[in-house]
Amino acid sequence: MLLFGGKVLFCVLQKEEKISVMYELLSNIRTPADLKKMSLSEMDRLCSEIRDFLISSVSKTGGHLASNLGVVELTVAMHTVFDMPEDKVVWDVGHQSYVHKILTGRIDGFDTLRQFGGLSGFPKRSESIYDCFDTGHSSTSLSAALGIATARDIAGDTYDVAAVFGDGALTGGMMYEALNHVGRSKSKLILILNDNEMSISRNVGAISNYLRNLRSKQSYYKSKQVIENMLNKIPVGGKTTARLLRAVKRNIRRMVLPTTLFDDLGIEYLGPVDGHDMSTLLNVLKRAKKSKKTVIIHVNTKKGKGYLPAEENPQKFHGISPVKPHNDVSDDYSAVFGKKLCALAGENKKIAAITGAMPLGTGLEEFSARFKQRFFDVGIAEQHAVTFAAGLACGGYAPVVAIYSSFLQRAYDQIIHDVCLQNLHVVLAVDRAGLVGADGETHQGLYDIAFLSHMPNMSILSPCNFAELEQMLEYAVNIHNTPIAVRYPRGKAQVKCENTAFEFGKADIIRNGKDAVIITAGRMVATAIKAADIALKYGIDVQVVSLKTIKPFDEETILECAAATRNVITIEDGVCAGGFGERIGAFLKSKDISCTFHAIGFPDEPIIHGNVTELDVYYGVDAKSVADLVTSIVRGDKHDK
Amino acid sequence: MLLFGGKVLFCVLQKEEKISVMYELLSNIRTPADLKKMSLSEMDRLCSEIRDFLISSVSKTGGHLASNLGVVELTVAMHTVFDMPEDKVVWDVGHQSYVHKILTGRIDGFDTLRQFGGLSGFPKRSESIYDCFDTGHSSTSLSAALGIATARDIAGDTYDVAAVFGDGALTGGMMYEALNHVGRSKSKLILILNDNEMSISRNVGAISNYLRNLRSKQSYYKSKQVIENMLNKIPVGGKTTARLLRAVKRNIRRMVLPTTLFDDLGIEYLGPVDGHDMSTLLNVLKRAKKSKKTVIIHVNTKKGKGYLPAEENPQKFHGISPVKPHNDVSDDYSAVFGKKLCALAGENKKIAAITGAMPLGTGLEEFSARFKQRFFDVGIAEQHAVTFAAGLACGGYAPVVAIYSSFLQRAYDQIIHDVCLQNLHVVLAVDRAGLVGADGETHQGLYDIAFLSHMPNMSILSPCNFAELEQMLEYAVNIHNTPIAVRYPRGKAQVKCENTAFEFGKADIIRNGKDAVIITAGRMVATAIKAADIALKYGIDVQVVSLKTIKPFDEETILECAAATRNVITIEDGVCAGGFGERIGAFLKSKDISCTFHAIGFPDEPIIHGNVTELDVYYGVDAKSVADLVTSIVRGDKHDK
Repeated sequence: MLLFGGKVLFCVLQKEEKISVMYELLSNIRTPADLKKMSLSEMDRLCSEIRDFLISSVSKTGGHLASNLGVVELTVAMHTVFDMPEDKVVWDVGHQSYVHKILTGRIDGFDTLRQFGGLSGFPKRSESIYDCFDTGHSSTSLSAALGIATARDIAGDTYDVAAVFGDGALTGGMMYEALNHVGRSKSKLILILNDNEMSISRNVGAISNYLRNLRSKQSYYKSKQVIENMLNKIPVGGKTTARLLRAVKRNIRRMVLPTTLFDDLGIEYLGPVDGHDMSTLLNVLKRAKKSKKTVIIHVNTKKGKGYLPAEENPQKFHGISPVKPHNDVSDDYSAVFGKKLCALAGENKKIAAITGAMPLGTGLEEFSARFKQRFFDVGIAEQHAVTFAAGLACGGYAPVVAIYSSFLQRAYDQIIHDVCLQNLHVVLAVDRAGLVGADGETHQGLYDIAFLSHMPNMSILSPCNFAELEQMLEYAVNIHNTPIAVRYPRGKAQVKCENTAFEFGKADIIRNGKDAVIITAGRMVATAIKAADIALKYGIDVQVVSLKTIKPFDEETILECAAATRNVITIEDGVCAGGFGERIGAFLKSKDISCTFHAIGFPDEPIIHGNVTELDVYYGVDAKSVADLVTSIVRGDKHDK
Repeated sequence: MLLFGGKVLFCVLQKEEKISVMYELLSNIRTPADLKKMSLSEMDRLCSEIRDFLISSVSKTGGHLASNLGVVELTVAMHTVFDMPEDKVVWDVGHQSYVHKILTGRIDGFDTLRQFGGLSGFPKRSESIYDCFDTGHSSTSLSAALGIATARDIAGDTYDVAAVFGDGALTGGMMYEALNHVGRSKSKLILILNDNEMSISRNVGAISNYLRNLRSKQSYYKSKQVIENMLNKIPVGGKTTARLLRAVKRNIRRMVLPTTLFDDLGIEYLGPVDGHDMSTLLNVLKRAKKSKKTVIIHVNTKKGKGYLPAEENPQKFHGISPVKPHNDVSDDYSAVFGKKLCALAGENKKIAAITGAMPLGTGLEEFSARFKQRFFDVGIAEQHAVTFAAGLACGGYAPVVAIYSSFLQRAYDQIIHDVCLQNLHVVLAVDRAGLVGADGETHQGLYDIAFLSHMPNMSILSPCNFAELEQMLEYAVNIHNTPIAVRYPRGKAQVKCENTAFEFGKADIIRNGKDAVIITAGRMVATAIKAADIALKYGIDVQVVSLKTIKPFDEETILECAAATRNVITIEDGVCAGGFGERIGAFLKSKDISCTFHAIGFPDEPIIHGNVTELDVYYGVDAKSVADLVTSIVRGDKHDK
């Protein structure tokens, strides 16, 4: 495994060297084709080995355990029936692709799972020819798979294309846009609904109820097969008789077999089948492969299957951190947000909270229990979440929408169109803003500053510690009355500083200095302070300004500090392009202030996975790199370059 | 009607003074409450007067004719049954709200419809207390209405909330996110599906087929009522018997009455009903108002009803321009795009085209006829359109996604997540980029430069005339092989200049000058040239640079021109915040170039409706304003301000 220009390149490794002899069958799988020779009982043993491997490996590295334990049989069956990489499988979200990775030459990468330079936790075309489409966000698989299948058909190829998606993905609207197209497209697809009755938390909504009803009809697939077989045995004779008989058969089918929402959309429904019964899975997949038309297979699985702690508490084991000797239970930003919002909601009856399938992740569990009537988990449905909030605001409430930064991208249009243009009091609690680390490219929250900054009427706040988060949240909910976002990072890293009272639009001078000023916000305030400490050892005296309000930024303070120090450096936990650094640079230029200017942040390229500290260093956004840059600027090395 | 600080304020006008006596009933409607006194036959006459008024008025001003002719009876019935403004109605998209505006004190505004300072073509809370939520983009109504209804219920209020949406809106995924929530929410809503079998063009997809089947079941609503009535007449006796009977009735209901997709989601389905039969409409709306649970009323309407040319060609009459003495039939950017793409697709078999319900608007009609297998109209489903394109690109094709700038906002996440992170060769044809004029706030294409500029791997091109559009499209499709957007304005306005060969990343110096440089792109190149002409009269010699490639911009040319002229002005057909002006300003600052800098573009606020020329002047983005600014900068008035 090599890290090369920010891309992870994978070589097929010599497995024998590393895989323990305890994985007897697993160690014999060189390519997925080896599965095709196995007997049913060998496959069952193989599944059990895969489970053992997953449990022991993921508990060391961290990662998505429960969802992968749920799809062991399904993935083995798929690799047995399909011929990958000729046949293509798109994994929705993609965190359930570990078994697929294990079976496609990447088992030895698991000790580096989600680590800097190591195996990605999601499918990556750059990692393996077996990965045909990168995923990360929910509900994209059907659109992507239909695109691939359409390309196949125009080109006259014949391979199969499948999409594997959870019941949670069906709460995302994009799936219906795709189903609408799939239902009338002539391109054949195999849709596999991996129904574990959970997305990350327990699923919500009408779709979920509907699926639960289907799920319980255990005999449906079999009875349908029996009836189909019976009907197929009725001989079809001469021309007229044939037509008549076909009509009769069609009607019997219609009367006897219940139709589903999917049938209504023109997609043949097969299921539900037991997702842990290898023989059934092989049968239904073979039937789907043979079919000339698009089919959807409804597979019932159990999240965490085979690992009791995960079966009993799949939400907890959805994504786990590596097991540590001492479990740190102190708060993180999400927890502080949740607690403070509860305190505020106790006082202010107009506060409501909305989440998109993340009540636990966003710290809203207590709120959901204490303020049931004012709490809304809308599923993986960020678009609806934001416009629903706009409706609540029109009805006189102060809705707080808590969504991770990278998932909020889904609601870009709704934030502009439904919140900002109407200038409504909706509070966006932008969790996981900035680098998120191990989840990598698709999950980095690096765009929210850029995309929120150009929206009319939008304000953006950024706390550097828990006390500031509390102050800002209180301000956003109780005092501000137009669109506002509070962005805060994943985790606990805080800046220890005297917290002045929060004043909207006012920056804090955290530290004085005469040679240069670092203007920053949020998580990067700590980096700036450390950089200033290092620079001081080189004899450079650096001022540090925490913006607190990113939009509108404090023009007066910035002008004063720029004029006084004559060297301005901005650092942000986001992409430079369109970030506050560029906006400050343009502002200083338009005011014709005589000073040097350097914007530090993440470059205009996909930002890889790894832990946050490593990534900061890799991209030159760490204290040492900043200190070196500031020093060279002040000494004049970087002047007029 | 007053224009005040960019906001349109409406006063209730004295109608008698202006409305022709030919609208006898219409002129007696002072508030919607007046409808409640009318007899059925008077209502029918009223509808006919409204139709006459719409036809004569909208053909003078331009606007959405066919969709409003289709909802005359529905809107009159709604205002009769509901008590607005206490009851709230959210109009999806909103271009069908003219009848609603006529009935709510705004009839005299229709001679200023969609004009600068005049009546908006969409619902606007700032315009009337009868407008409870602003719309413009499709498929938001359900989310907004549910938000309002939820706020009502928490507050303990009892008014009714309805959402009116077309069958086209049901191709947008956001509707399903909302339906999923509606289906399990206890808050009662009245959903009105205005099914005219069209969105803007004829509708597409499985949902549309499904609705067509429902639509044809003319007797369904009545038979359902008959059965319900019969069942309700069965007396329910003592305790046990009652329970038993209820179960029996439930089962009969289930067996006899077909269920719909909506029933599956837990929403009672009423319909289909004839949308032009007042008595039926009043009945079904009253029943819906009485119901304790959320219902969906399926109303069949005819787009363009009552106006033969519009009935026969509703697509053409969807949005019409004012009737002009001489009809100009010369090409616009969309037509040039469509023709060129056909020419390219004839040669390159890998080119595919995708549109979101806009085959006519985006100029793709010829393509759709000539290259059926490679043309895809996915409905109002921009998210799916982009990820589907990513799938096609993975399958070796070069998909061109033609979407209006403001609608492309819906696919923000998909462009980053599915196209840019995977660095796929998807071409975005961003039509209606920049000011669009009469449609106003929700339709202005002012954000695409800002939101595409911060996406990794994305390039952006901007032609200033048809020849450049052709060159750039050919480059984007045949030579470039990573994500790229070509943005071009609505209409025909072109810059007459020598077209040099297009070179990616290279700007054109359109005109030389020594005192200042205007750096611009696309439609604004013409503005810059005119400004330079005006400035020359004041003795100021202005250079004009057309970027052509907005991202990555031509750093070398910019540095040279900035250093030579020492005064840099950028102009863009987009918002300043996050636009190329700011990025160039920050770039110049970071390079420590000694020059003044001013970015001109649209301000950080909702941009109102009006014609493009008027809006340019209003916002100071016209040639005269630019010339004045440049002159004052060069003369030093604006130095060091």
